[in-house]
Amino acid sequence: MINENALLLIAHGSRRDRSNTEIRELTERLRTRSEHFSRVECAFLELAEPSIPHALRGLVAAGFNEITVLPYFLSRGRHVVEDIPAEISVVAREYPAVRIRQAPYLGDAEGVVDLLLRQAVL
Amino acid sequence: MINENALLLIAHGSRRDRSNTEIRELTERLRTRSEHFSRVECAFLELAEPSIPHALRGLVAAGFNEITVLPYFLSRGRHVVEDIPAEISVVAREYPAVRIRQAPYLGDAEGVVDLLLRQAVL
Repeated sequence: MINENALLLIAHGSRRDRSNTEIRELTERLRTRSEHFSRVECAFLELAEPSIPHALRGLVAAGFNEITVLPYFLSRGRHVVEDIPAEISVVAREYPAVRIRQAPYLGDAEGVVDLLLRQAVL
Repeated sequence: MINENALLLIAHGSRRDRSNTEIRELTERLRTRSEHFSRVECAFLELAEPSIPHALRGLVAAGFNEITVLPYFLSRGRHVVEDIPAEISVVAREYPAVRIRQAPYLGDAEGVVDLLLRQAVL
């Protein structure tokens, strides 16, 4: 098995289709821009498909053995601290040879400050 | 009245105190880094204080006549499209001489893509 990196962006998921579409469009932009990951997908914690376990299993089936899970969340709430790790660990137990790691959530990024200040003067 | 710019960061608000504290800490970082705004505050759409109208009235009372409202939100949902504009318009009607504008929400920023990719390899 060669070393293949995949990125899985996790959003909360919404009843509004347009919000989920925004996530899929963002994922497409990540795909275009990423040099580090050979594949970029998205998954939803609830209210939209695919689920996190479904997306992770798909990446494992496609041969990825290094998967970075990136929470598109703003605060260190229950979703980031408990729910996403719990969904990851279900799949991690099924495939002990696959490394699945959770990256820091978006709101934790130091760069959020500069990004907000740029938005503020648009 | 001199021209004074203030920035009001709007978060959803949470039942979890720590999430609201994260917003207040982010506001402090914005305050430290901002050169364009003479004052930076935060307000919450629900579940935490201050409310958006309360914070806006406080800025007007302090002499600010140019206020930028910046939604710390990830998707173009009802909160960004309807709820925040509705709260702004209540106060805008009270003070026609004050310019209150809503900046694009965080998730709309093109720079989110690069920020996410940086988080992914941390």
